[in-house]
Amino acid sequence: MPNLPHQLQALNAAVLSDTLDSLGLMQQAMKPFMRPLDDTLQLIGRARTGLYMPMYSLPEAGQNPYEVEIALVDDLAPGEVVVLACDGPTERIAPWGELLSTASAARGAAGCVTDGLVRDVRQIREMRFPVYCGGIGPLDTKGRARMVDRDVPVMCAGVTVRSGDLVFGDVDGVVVVPQEVEEEVVRRALDKISGENQSREALRRGEKLADVFGRLGIL
Amino acid sequence: MPNLPHQLQALNAAVLSDTLDSLGLMQQAMKPFMRPLDDTLQLIGRARTGLYMPMYSLPEAGQNPYEVEIALVDDLAPGEVVVLACDGPTERIAPWGELLSTASAARGAAGCVTDGLVRDVRQIREMRFPVYCGGIGPLDTKGRARMVDRDVPVMCAGVTVRSGDLVFGDVDGVVVVPQEVEEEVVRRALDKISGENQSREALRRGEKLADVFGRLGIL
Amino acid sequence: MPNLPHQLQALNAAVLSDTLDSLGLMQQAMKPFMRPLDDTLQLIGRARTGLYMPMYSLPEAGQNPYEVEIALVDDLAPGEVVVLACDGPTERIAPWGELLSTASAARGAAGCVTDGLVRDVRQIREMRFPVYCGGIGPLDTKGRARMVDRDVPVMCAGVTVRSGDLVFGDVDGVVVVPQEVEEEVVRRALDKISGENQSREALRRGEKLADVFGRLGIL
Amino acid sequence: MPNLPHQLQALNAAVLSDTLDSLGLMQQAMKPFMRPLDDTLQLIGRARTGLYMPMYSLPEAGQNPYEVEIALVDDLAPGEVVVLACDGPTERIAPWGELLSTASAARGAAGCVTDGLVRDVRQIREMRFPVYCGGIGPLDTKGRARMVDRDVPVMCAGVTVRSGDLVFGDVDGVVVVPQEVEEEVVRRALDKISGENQSREALRRGEKLADVFGRLGIL
Amino acid sequence: MPNLPHQLQALNAAVLSDTLDSLGLMQQAMKPFMRPLDDTLQLIGRARTGLYMPMYSLPEAGQNPYEVEIALVDDLAPGEVVVLACDGPTERIAPWGELLSTASAARGAAGCVTDGLVRDVRQIREMRFPVYCGGIGPLDTKGRARMVDRDVPVMCAGVTVRSGDLVFGDVDGVVVVPQEVEEEVVRRALDKISGENQSREALRRGEKLADVFGRLGIL
Amino acid sequence: MPNLPHQLQALNAAVLSDTLDSLGLMQQAMKPFMRPLDDTLQLIGRARTGLYMPMYSLPEAGQNPYEVEIALVDDLAPGEVVVLACDGPTERIAPWGELLSTASAARGAAGCVTDGLVRDVRQIREMRFPVYCGGIGPLDTKGRARMVDRDVPVMCAGVTVRSGDLVFGDVDGVVVVPQEVEEEVVRRALDKISGENQSREALRRGEKLADVFGRLGIL
Repeated sequence: MPNLPHQLQALNAAVLSDTLDSLGLMQQAMKPFMRPLDDTLQLIGRARTGLYMPMYSLPEAGQNPYEVEIALVDDLAPGEVVVLACDGPTERIAPWGELLSTASAARGAAGCVTDGLVRDVRQIREMRFPVYCGGIGPLDTKGRARMVDRDVPVMCAGVTVRSGDLVFGDVDGVVVVPQEVEEEVVRRALDKISGENQSREALRRGEKLADVFGRLGIL
Repeated sequence: MPNLPHQLQALNAAVLSDTLDSLGLMQQAMKPFMRPLDDTLQLIGRARTGLYMPMYSLPEAGQNPYEVEIALVDDLAPGEVVVLACDGPTERIAPWGELLSTASAARGAAGCVTDGLVRDVRQIREMRFPVYCGGIGPLDTKGRARMVDRDVPVMCAGVTVRSGDLVFGDVDGVVVVPQEVEEEVVRRALDKISGENQSREALRRGEKLADVFGRLGIL
Repeated sequence: MPNLPHQLQALNAAVLSDTLDSLGLMQQAMKPFMRPLDDTLQLIGRARTGLYMPMYSLPEAGQNPYEVEIALVDDLAPGEVVVLACDGPTERIAPWGELLSTASAARGAAGCVTDGLVRDVRQIREMRFPVYCGGIGPLDTKGRARMVDRDVPVMCAGVTVRSGDLVFGDVDGVVVVPQEVEEEVVRRALDKISGENQSREALRRGEKLADVFGRLGIL
Repeated sequence: MPNLPHQLQALNAAVLSDTLDSLGLMQQAMKPFMRPLDDTLQLIGRARTGLYMPMYSLPEAGQNPYEVEIALVDDLAPGEVVVLACDGPTERIAPWGELLSTASAARGAAGCVTDGLVRDVRQIREMRFPVYCGGIGPLDTKGRARMVDRDVPVMCAGVTVRSGDLVFGDVDGVVVVPQEVEEEVVRRALDKISGENQSREALRRGEKLADVFGRLGIL
Repeated sequence: MPNLPHQLQALNAAVLSDTLDSLGLMQQAMKPFMRPLDDTLQLIGRARTGLYMPMYSLPEAGQNPYEVEIALVDDLAPGEVVVLACDGPTERIAPWGELLSTASAARGAAGCVTDGLVRDVRQIREMRFPVYCGGIGPLDTKGRARMVDRDVPVMCAGVTVRSGDLVFGDVDGVVVVPQEVEEEVVRRALDKISGENQSREALRRGEKLADVFGRLGIL
Repeated sequence: MPNLPHQLQALNAAVLSDTLDSLGLMQQAMKPFMRPLDDTLQLIGRARTGLYMPMYSLPEAGQNPYEVEIALVDDLAPGEVVVLACDGPTERIAPWGELLSTASAARGAAGCVTDGLVRDVRQIREMRFPVYCGGIGPLDTKGRARMVDRDVPVMCAGVTVRSGDLVFGDVDGVVVVPQEVEEEVVRRALDKISGENQSREALRRGEKLADVFGRLGIL
């Protein structure tokens, strides 16, 4: 994947969250209502943000309600992750589905994260396109919401995301690494993983947790 | 399935919701807290409604707290879907389980939808009986709730359902098609599906979303 | 499993809940936000409780924020279930993960129940260690919460749990059997299961629910 | 007020709640979403319960949707408190208003408690009829809910209430004293009030809280 | 007040809601989280709608984040009610305050209704400008939200509002009368009020509720 | 009031919030569920924090469950504000009441802020002691919660508070000014207030909002 730190695939959301904590960045994990459509698919990429507003009427004649989101998807580069902020959790805004997944995948995009709903779940799972979302629902956005801005800072499931931030998702959730600290976070996280491996081995052998934690300082 | 429009199995919840939207019926998809017990099982059938009330004491001696629901289940015809309204989401009313599923399946019923909880999930999954519900819990209704009316209009997960309405469920959620518009909705939905197939093909080939949407008008 | 009634594995959460109801104990099933990480793994064991408090600052230098939970885990006996009360549901307290699961499994513990979040879900599933939780999230507890007391009565997902109580979990949820009534509950529950088997057979043969319920009194 | 312990007016909700706690009855205070329409009006009386169910359709022709509540109100004796359980908090069930207040006051009833909504608030305040409720709203119950049972045990704002229980309300909230313990609770509560008076005096003089609590054991 | 039906001040929210119900319009009362800042101030006027979106970043240099709301307020005519939809309830969007109230009052506007928060509550109360809102908070909208559209249909606290609809508020809540049915609703509501007066008199005299309801059919 | 910036009483929560916003501190206003017991009482002082944990059992014999809170109150200096964090909103933790208010007032404390509940509301209002809280309820903390730490950083209603921070409350809500920026915030806020006065005058005279905002840049 172009432009992304090596060895990211060896990481996981928990170790990234711990590492961000250690730098004083404690608001980088999205809230637990965010779940993957397929929890075997790791998500790694750079954010491209979109910001939605609620609507309660149909677009006027001649207006294309999907204009901004079409532009965002058509502009995706390989390795990018669409991050759609709908002020979720929501019961009525479903900004993502099969056709957008297909178009994004055709451009090499790495996945989608939204605090809104997602539809066409069966087809998206079959494509093995990584999507993390705030819920599932069959609703079109037309007459319910529209994307107003793109590539602006957004809040998604409790985390501020800027286009260009590193987005990482696995079964434990979604973590956002701000670009400024990316290099340091990745380096520290790889170190921590090797410490965890030692702890695990010792615990499997039946060592006391108190002894292992005393020696390695990792839990 | 008797008395149901042909080709329903080729449809999906998203296209039905879009079609209902196009007729101005925008409140026909149940809220996203409703999930299938088995998301590979499509649900298609006609509603038979039941309405529950909360209770906080045991029934009096000699009273059968299950009387109305037993009558409803014993009266099911093939292709019908039991729709049980419990004012969900709820933490304490679980109106459905294995024995009711068994009795319903024996009568050819198509499934169950409830905004309450469901229990005996393992056995219901093994039967491959389609159930869409507001959650899972082991609680009996006795002393917690009872069905008071049947075949009355109910609100289930945000949608008004009348006995006889078409109920459709898949992994994306549950959509209710009022009987008056059923024929038109099914016809339009089949048309839309063929348009979506064209969009998908074009997007897979890497066409710009803007071009495909401009040409086919489908997202 | 030492010290546990025979035949528990033949039971299920629903029948235990019904049996507790019949003794007037109607608050013994945890709320439905509690779900298993792996819904094929039955959980049976005796509770060992831990009580968490929220925190909003890092521990002071030299303080071990995990001290009480390490002591609890190191003290586990075979067949015990760690029950961690975090005043859940919560978006920020995740008291359980892979290393604690590994240490607990090494001591023969039967599983973990928490109304908080759990992380390292992939690894815990691979271990086939039964965990029932209030959600999933990658967050460390350090700076967010700490266990203050252990082996005190706690409220977990709406149920009072005391160390020594029988904890039973399956796909339908988690039920807690107070030690004082354990023997009677298990005996009655086994009886009820055999009645349910008769009902199921009759219903499969197509008997009217009204007749079966009239004869066997079981739904 | 007939049939009620003397000196109740000298009590308050907090001291009654503490006294019930001291007997191990810790679930007797209604949840804080319950507020008085007029927080200067103390409420003291014996419960007469009504239980509501949600509805989503108009009553059939010839049916009187208010039948059970009319019967309850017409049957009120002096000093009784109508307690209406609507499974609140609710946004749509408003079982109480001016005309029912007028009829109840004409019979000498002491007030009304409901976890539903109340309407005609201005007029009820002008009557100085004590009402404690889960919210305010202008909606009629017709087509939204109906009272199904009366004088059955109900759960109202988290507390089990039986007809005949003592209901006490003031600005701090609503407390329910089960009839069996009423005599003891009232006696103990009066004692506690005199202890609190001593504490208050000492604290006003500027004594250390530690000293006062050490001496009197009251906070 | 120009262009508004006579005798509106004799009405109240409850009777308007009942009358709308009788025409099958059962979704016209805003949810109960909406409360007046001053519950002695009746609100009567025609809606002018504004629709907000959430934001999470400051406006770009040179952009006026208040542009659309300034235009709406400067365009108000006497007797109009500003209706601001923020997808409330919300903890962070406070679209209304003292200066907007002052500017609106200077144009003869009748009040403001918002499902967002309001600030400068003391000053607004002193002005006796009727405001009904979803809560109180000191936050500026800059960097948190902005009005994107005006005079479009909005959903405010559960009710669809169109510019020109009649908005009525009193202590019982806010009711919206669609312009198409306004004349009929006002006429019927005035009739109902005179029936209620008869009921009240009879009940005060101590007549049975059953008799009064039987005779007048009003509750 | 010792040790507090002059002219604070001329400020208000809204202007302080705006000023903190202008320094990039956008999380300093507590959530709107926090309300004053008496909205005419301004609250100004320096925080002294206390952190509570939930409990579900009575303290052991000989244990004083109020120990830490007694120590905090006995240690209060004039002009200090007790800030009690209970992870609110809560239905069961009421850490404040009349006796603590009396003891605090006797030491010259400026008030209390808690995201928990408060009891003895009538008496506290009579004392005119400023209390801002997350709700009202009659419950004792004994057996429900206890203060575990004091003078540690806490999160109260969404805002991080440290002992020594400036706490300001009025009818619009509670704002916390971190000590490091206090001087600058107060100075800027006083400037802004004078600008608002000019806007108000111009708007009262009927000037267009667009003109006034264009000239003064204040809304």
